Amino acid sequence: MSTATAEPEGISDYLTRSRDQVLRYIHSIVPDSKHTGGLYKLILDYPLREGKSLRPALCLAVCQALNGKETDALPSAAALELYHNAFLVHDDVEDGSLQRRRDATLHRKYGVPIAINVGDATLALAMEPLLGNIETIGLGRALRILEVVQRMARESTEGQMLELQWRRDKAAFPCTRDYVRMVYKKTCWYSFVAPMEIGAIASGASAQVEKQFWRFALVLGVAFQIVDDLLNLTADISEYGKEIGGDLWEGKYTLILIHTLNSASQLESRKALRILTTERPDLESGKAQSIRTEEDVAYLRRLIEKYDGIRFARQVATRYATEALRRLQQIATSVPRTVHLEFLYELVTYVSERRR
Amino acid sequence: MSTATAEPEGISDYLTRSRDQVLRYIHSIVPDSKHTGGLYKLILDYPLREGKSLRPALCLAVCQALNGKETDALPSAAALELYHNAFLVHDDVEDGSLQRRRDATLHRKYGVPIAINVGDATLALAMEPLLGNIETIGLGRALRILEVVQRMARESTEGQMLELQWRRDKAAFPCTRDYVRMVYKKTCWYSFVAPMEIGAIASGASAQVEKQFWRFALVLGVAFQIVDDLLNLTADISEYGKEIGGDLWEGKYTLILIHTLNSASQLESRKALRILTTERPDLESGKAQSIRTEEDVAYLRRLIEKYDGIRFARQVATRYATEALRRLQQIATSVPRTVHLEFLYELVTYVSERRR
Repeated sequence: MSTATAEPEGISDYLTRSRDQVLRYIHSIVPDSKHTGGLYKLILDYPLREGKSLRPALCLAVCQALNGKETDALPSAAALELYHNAFLVHDDVEDGSLQRRRDATLHRKYGVPIAINVGDATLALAMEPLLGNIETIGLGRALRILEVVQRMARESTEGQMLELQWRRDKAAFPCTRDYVRMVYKKTCWYSFVAPMEIGAIASGASAQVEKQFWRFALVLGVAFQIVDDLLNLTADISEYGKEIGGDLWEGKYTLILIHTLNSASQLESRKALRILTTERPDLESGKAQSIRTEEDVAYLRRLIEKYDGIRFARQVATRYATEALRRLQQIATSVPRTVHLEFLYELVTYVSERRR
Repeated sequence: MSTATAEPEGISDYLTRSRDQVLRYIHSIVPDSKHTGGLYKLILDYPLREGKSLRPALCLAVCQALNGKETDALPSAAALELYHNAFLVHDDVEDGSLQRRRDATLHRKYGVPIAINVGDATLALAMEPLLGNIETIGLGRALRILEVVQRMARESTEGQMLELQWRRDKAAFPCTRDYVRMVYKKTCWYSFVAPMEIGAIASGASAQVEKQFWRFALVLGVAFQIVDDLLNLTADISEYGKEIGGDLWEGKYTLILIHTLNSASQLESRKALRILTTERPDLESGKAQSIRTEEDVAYLRRLIEKYDGIRFARQVATRYATEALRRLQQIATSVPRTVHLEFLYELVTYVSERRR
């Protein structure tokens, strides 16, 4: 990892420290059961791959920024990390993705049936720390956190459904507004809103503060997702850890592509739509093949260039990141300047400038 | 449905009534959200297909047999039905099943990605009534129920993992003990133990009574699963609603098959093992094809006949059903004779004699 392109040192340290804490906690709740066919080893596969562990870090940071104890948020942070990994495992099957964090996706290593079951088992395990919260932070907060997690799970599956439906729609493609709505549900909720809201609840903050973080999380999440899509097209694979341009091969509707389709001529967009809605190949084999050809992907790339899809998406991302900064500054007027608040500030910059 | 082969009228009425209650409840919690890509319609697909709704009926029956109110158990019963349907959707993908309750499986209708997501969304929805329990039956009971549900989800995925691992093992096949252990986890827990334990908790019964039902549920569950496997091989499709012999085509290790393999000569069992561990075909297409040939399946059938696999399994099922009856009689010494207890009695008979 070269320092020129990586996250600033402060963020990196903060993330590493949170990650260590959370992984230690997860290890402590993974049962040492016999007769489980190696299930729990597989549950740990994705979490142990090198990753940012952004979500638990957000949860821990917000809790402590609001003067809560780290231990008050740690079980919830671990649960969020487990939820995240469960979603990743299922999403990778649903998207037919090949790589995740520099290694083959779980369904490619063990087959689709085991991958689906590992996702379900991870969700089951995630409930444990959430129930344990009752003893450590008391009933009221524990229940509010369970409610947020339930909503998070609903929003995520609703967002995923929207995206999956787009891919089946051979007659129309989404507009920018559809995209933002989908990202609110699919990315913002479980990657930003829930971690921050839960951190705030664990700290014992007021409903008003909780809402401030909710508003901040929504716009930061949109910026994050757009940058993620940009990286997928433009990053250096050695840093990014997934296949470059994989989104195009998968036919994923990113803002880049949506802007392009909405700018293109009818002839162009119709051709692109045909390419994008081609049915995907055999999920089971997980082979590095796609029903889309090199030529198809090259056509999409040319269209994106022609209509400046990347520049458009970058502008939108910057707008959201700027709004995120404004909302964080508002929060900061009533929150002391700590290393935790600092982390959130640096994160806003990092999200707009990240390279992996 | 001919009355000669269907469940006795008492059971049938009880199941129908429970099912109506539970479906009404589920309808009441399904959100009427826009922008969800039709997700909630798909969540209702399996629950609305004609099914027994055995699990919610068990939950309602035990609660009321112990003098609890029906409304105390209804939200939990609905949650159990949702969990059950989520498992079915995912299991059908994992097993490559073609039919479910007289219709094509969800992944055949909408593709694997949507089916996985519908399962996840169903799990998310199931949490809602469980959290709502706190207001209606109080914190203590609501939490105990959440704990049971969490364990249920863990046991089920552990059992599923065991079964999935067997199918990948080209060197060895399970023994009868392995089978019973897997069924305890995969079937008993979520179909019998959790519904009955939760019914008992909702009624406010003592831990001792809860444990009695737990012991009853375990043996009844084993009997149920073995009979289910028997039906898959021997039932009339018009009553059963799934493809007959589907388990053989899927290469599922039933007690019938396990007994056969453990009785067969080395040569025979090695050939059978080769047939059983053949990799499955394209999951995505969901076509009515199998990598196993007519000849393969015929070979397995011949082996089963030769070693009397069906008779053996029937005997074991009867042994478990008899033990279930004994345990229920024990429970009945301290529980008044009501229509709810009657239902449980009839169920024991039904489980050993059912035809669909």
